[in-house]
Amino acid sequence: MEYTSLESVGEFGLIERLVRSIPLPSRHVVKGPGDDCAVLEPNGSELLLVTTDALVERVHFDLTYCPLKYLGYKAAAVNFSDIYAMNGRPTALTLSLAVGARFGVEAVEEIFGGILTACKEYGADLVGGDVTSSRAGLMLSLTALGRVSRSEIVYRSGARPTDLICLTGDVGAACAGLRILEREKAVFKENPNVNPDVAEFAYVVERQLRPVAKKQALENIRRSGVKITSMIDVSDGVANETWHLAQASGCGAVVVQDKLPIDYQTIKVAEMFDESPVEWALYGGEDYELLFTVPAMDYEKIIAVPEVAVIGYMTEKISGVKLAMSDGSFADLKFLGFNHFVGKST
Amino acid sequence: MEYTSLESVGEFGLIERLVRSIPLPSRHVVKGPGDDCAVLEPNGSELLLVTTDALVERVHFDLTYCPLKYLGYKAAAVNFSDIYAMNGRPTALTLSLAVGARFGVEAVEEIFGGILTACKEYGADLVGGDVTSSRAGLMLSLTALGRVSRSEIVYRSGARPTDLICLTGDVGAACAGLRILEREKAVFKENPNVNPDVAEFAYVVERQLRPVAKKQALENIRRSGVKITSMIDVSDGVANETWHLAQASGCGAVVVQDKLPIDYQTIKVAEMFDESPVEWALYGGEDYELLFTVPAMDYEKIIAVPEVAVIGYMTEKISGVKLAMSDGSFADLKFLGFNHFVGKST
Repeated sequence: MEYTSLESVGEFGLIERLVRSIPLPSRHVVKGPGDDCAVLEPNGSELLLVTTDALVERVHFDLTYCPLKYLGYKAAAVNFSDIYAMNGRPTALTLSLAVGARFGVEAVEEIFGGILTACKEYGADLVGGDVTSSRAGLMLSLTALGRVSRSEIVYRSGARPTDLICLTGDVGAACAGLRILEREKAVFKENPNVNPDVAEFAYVVERQLRPVAKKQALENIRRSGVKITSMIDVSDGVANETWHLAQASGCGAVVVQDKLPIDYQTIKVAEMFDESPVEWALYGGEDYELLFTVPAMDYEKIIAVPEVAVIGYMTEKISGVKLAMSDGSFADLKFLGFNHFVGKST
Repeated sequence: MEYTSLESVGEFGLIERLVRSIPLPSRHVVKGPGDDCAVLEPNGSELLLVTTDALVERVHFDLTYCPLKYLGYKAAAVNFSDIYAMNGRPTALTLSLAVGARFGVEAVEEIFGGILTACKEYGADLVGGDVTSSRAGLMLSLTALGRVSRSEIVYRSGARPTDLICLTGDVGAACAGLRILEREKAVFKENPNVNPDVAEFAYVVERQLRPVAKKQALENIRRSGVKITSMIDVSDGVANETWHLAQASGCGAVVVQDKLPIDYQTIKVAEMFDESPVEWALYGGEDYELLFTVPAMDYEKIIAVPEVAVIGYMTEKISGVKLAMSDGSFADLKFLGFNHFVGKST
């Protein structure tokens, strides 16, 4: 890769280079980058959604194995995922990027390119931002805006007892990918001549490095005509997110262990590490699937939607949040949260 | 100060503590923190403004002398300043905070308290955010939303030749404050028993540590009935911002050196350091005053507005951007920009 130092182009020079690569914005953008604020045309009949999510080096990612382009894509996708979790559509994104002097202009352009790829894929405009130096690591903080009609907005709080708990895609894969990458990193440190071989686990590695926000799955659900009653995106594992839905909705919940959709590669990796793929599905995090509830009467309709599995059901609050085990018994489904301050689930 | 470790409360615990301290939101906030996104009621007749600005430790601030509460306030105020620079009103703010393990819960609460103080003062709701750990320094990235009516929005690009260049408040003070603080820091490092004495320079120190977004001045200008033709906030010094207005408007400009409003304390500090207060006014930065243009025919009206000075006028583009010196001669007013990647104006 070429290397042009950030000092040599300066902050304004860098921003000018980056802004030139932004495609023409949609009609709702009255003014993109280049003034004190971006100016957007609101849609008076729709609600405005706002969400912020940051990725911090050595906390959320490791540049040893995370390509910069993927990093930019992921930072944008995790924000768009929050917009989809309200049943909305992303419209705009702002970026705040802090980079150390060790990064060159080309590296920043890689990150930026990844963000633009995600913007294009999800239909949002990059409307503004801020690039600054950092004496330490790389940090990206993104804010996404979105829209949703009043009649279609879905909160975490709308689930009712007997509603079915549904999940898009499969879970635990991002965690499996992380294990593979961490292992390859350790091997590489011991012997830099060994080339990492992740091809066998390409799917789970990709799930970790380049998560997809579930735009298409959500469109499929909408087309089914089923009314989603509550929804959240799975960033901290199915168990924690089920807890969030249950608490916000004033319900209990049962997740059926055998119904958890887990990919074959995830299971294989878990076997290799002698760990439980179910644990990864429940607490692994970073899958960015959508966890949602629908009325029980819509069972036939929702299981007909591609990529959607029914994994449990909501109950009365007094029943608590449970895991239905393979042997027919019930266990408490623990809320562990995710503690970034210790760097692992606690 | 008490110290409760971040590890002990965890990310969810910390966010819960912080969210409890947020006052009840305005009516336009349909849903504040607690779901995947904040949900806002747009005002269909007004345009939506979005701006992002980050403060990074050891780049934008130094915790040796910057109280955490002021830091939070400043991070919010500099974003609101961008909203005012479009002639808008701030409505909402999201926060992304990365903190190292050396910070305790109480420190984060201090920062948060400063942000809430600013939100209250400027009439915006804190609607969402993200708190994460950082292996390195402290970083705050804030995104402000605002509104402005279509007929009142002011861009950088609306100035015309003969328009008067006006400025709120005084400039160079934040730079003077920084010099004092840096000096006291050096003294303290040599001899930790010497208590810093900044009382004599309280005004300039406050301008550096706790800049005020010019809400009141802008209201006064609006009340005068004068139509602002272009506007920008002064974050990188009057010279750079005049350049931005001139370039965006396709004009030249003349700034009259003797008309630059410089506080007596700023002059005194510049003398102490044997530096030029005019240089600080032109290139010092961080003053967060509003630089704007009005039609020449409104001269009488605009000079009657408290806190506003006329410091020059716009010219044809071919004339370039000039500084009218005390002796009647003209010099090129240089565009230096601000290069965060080398940490000083270049």
